[in-house]
Amino acid sequence: MSLDSFPRGVLVPAVTPFNADLSVDATRFVDHCRWLLAEGASGLAVFGTTSEANALSIGERTDLLERLIASGIPANVLLPGTGCCALPDTVALTRHAVQNGCFGVLMLPPFYYKGVSDDGLFASVAEVIERVADARLRIYLYHIPPMAGVGFSLPLIERLLKSYRGVVAGIKDSSGDWKCTKALLETFPGFEVFPGAETYLLDALRLGGAGCISATANVNVAAMAGLIREFRSAEADAMQRALTAVRAAIQKFPLVSANKAILARMHDDDGWNIVRPPLVPLGAGAKTELFASLDALQVHAGQPVPAR
Amino acid sequence: MSLDSFPRGVLVPAVTPFNADLSVDATRFVDHCRWLLAEGASGLAVFGTTSEANALSIGERTDLLERLIASGIPANVLLPGTGCCALPDTVALTRHAVQNGCFGVLMLPPFYYKGVSDDGLFASVAEVIERVADARLRIYLYHIPPMAGVGFSLPLIERLLKSYRGVVAGIKDSSGDWKCTKALLETFPGFEVFPGAETYLLDALRLGGAGCISATANVNVAAMAGLIREFRSAEADAMQRALTAVRAAIQKFPLVSANKAILARMHDDDGWNIVRPPLVPLGAGAKTELFASLDALQVHAGQPVPAR
Repeated sequence: MSLDSFPRGVLVPAVTPFNADLSVDATRFVDHCRWLLAEGASGLAVFGTTSEANALSIGERTDLLERLIASGIPANVLLPGTGCCALPDTVALTRHAVQNGCFGVLMLPPFYYKGVSDDGLFASVAEVIERVADARLRIYLYHIPPMAGVGFSLPLIERLLKSYRGVVAGIKDSSGDWKCTKALLETFPGFEVFPGAETYLLDALRLGGAGCISATANVNVAAMAGLIREFRSAEADAMQRALTAVRAAIQKFPLVSANKAILARMHDDDGWNIVRPPLVPLGAGAKTELFASLDALQVHAGQPVPAR
Repeated sequence: MSLDSFPRGVLVPAVTPFNADLSVDATRFVDHCRWLLAEGASGLAVFGTTSEANALSIGERTDLLERLIASGIPANVLLPGTGCCALPDTVALTRHAVQNGCFGVLMLPPFYYKGVSDDGLFASVAEVIERVADARLRIYLYHIPPMAGVGFSLPLIERLLKSYRGVVAGIKDSSGDWKCTKALLETFPGFEVFPGAETYLLDALRLGGAGCISATANVNVAAMAGLIREFRSAEADAMQRALTAVRAAIQKFPLVSANKAILARMHDDDGWNIVRPPLVPLGAGAKTELFASLDALQVHAGQPVPAR
């Protein structure tokens, strides 16, 4: 993979704004996505954990993806999450993404049953590939055991690459464990490895990592994109320290609600705080603490969304 | 609750048979459900964990429920699982069950996000109740932290009963922890508590438990129903020991695949072994060991399905 080939860079798991009745606010979603790209995102990993994708129905997800593309955001920068518990749902979302020109899909393993075998997880991915049966399909595995309770082991990835190299194209590693990210980078050259947090961005880039896909890119994407551009410069370590400090300040709190609180402040719009159950908005005390930390770090979550 | 009032008894989380192409085999499903009722099941907790419900799409679940009712199985013995990760899905399935006359629904909490607050889980249940807005709704909470990674705490249940007593009618406790089942029985008199395994059936009945909802009821329902009828007799402890021994023999293996293997043997039909990924069928060695254990215990999984 050349250093400059897409999708190298920051792919943002864009948060999903809701109206007061908890319906999806597609207009604000499109605006937010447009702003993220303007700020330096290489692509958008819409419908990730941070997007509350698992709180959305299949129809809400396909509608929102179509709306995004219809608004002029190029499909070929989109990496929608499509991995569900039910095989027919994963197949439907994956086929829909491919047919709409998305450059790939980010695929959770089926995550209800725990303690499942690598044979079962291999079959899950294989069935999707065989049923979608489209040469354009590119799957990025979504490894997030702390949330999914199920993950992709190195031997399983090896098996998948043996059978489906080129289709199984990369991984988002949200294990939170640098040893895991490092092992992925070292074991599978050419496989696109995205750490699931910017904490390990510079370490990953130095080992050939593809960039990062991080929750906090919703509010700090420009700084992440900056480090990716400058990671060979003398300033790289200082840039990483700044990124790590911001991440640490935000991840003291539940990430989805914290991101939304920051966006609510940035837009001076309380509606940005709305989350779907089982998540809850950040409380007043938590917001005060979070904003004070960010102000002390001189973090300003970008500029207001440009007028359309 | 009087001792004889429905739904006291065994509610079976009926397994879902699949065709070779992994589509649902509705005909075999209906036959299996009919057989379970003939064997002594008080009701059917269709679309539970053992039913691979989370491997089915929303449409597959509503179609199959309608098919079951159309086949003549009374809706008022049905307790379909309706709890999904996404609020709109849980609302849709719950509304569908109520409108089709089911006596209640078995509701998983939204299970993707981990470490969520009781406030968030309360809101999840409350939103479903408010949106379904039907006086016939009866919710049985489905507490299965080992699989869902999220559960219903005693203070949360207390809050739910304070706001929605009568609507929130009971719980299936699949914690696998007798202390938890006992606390539920002692803390909430009148609340219908079903242990999620027959291992604690007699202990629960003696404290006023409603019966059980157990995976292995798919192959041993008559014996469970027998204990519920005779639990005040001198034979009760021996009956419980026999149930516990069978359960122990089966739960050495993954429960869904083990149940299906037993049904495949009973029907002399290999197709019964088919599961959807990420589950895998029991291997030959495991089957040999399982069948030998059951034969030693003189367990015969009922009689063949009566001809329709």
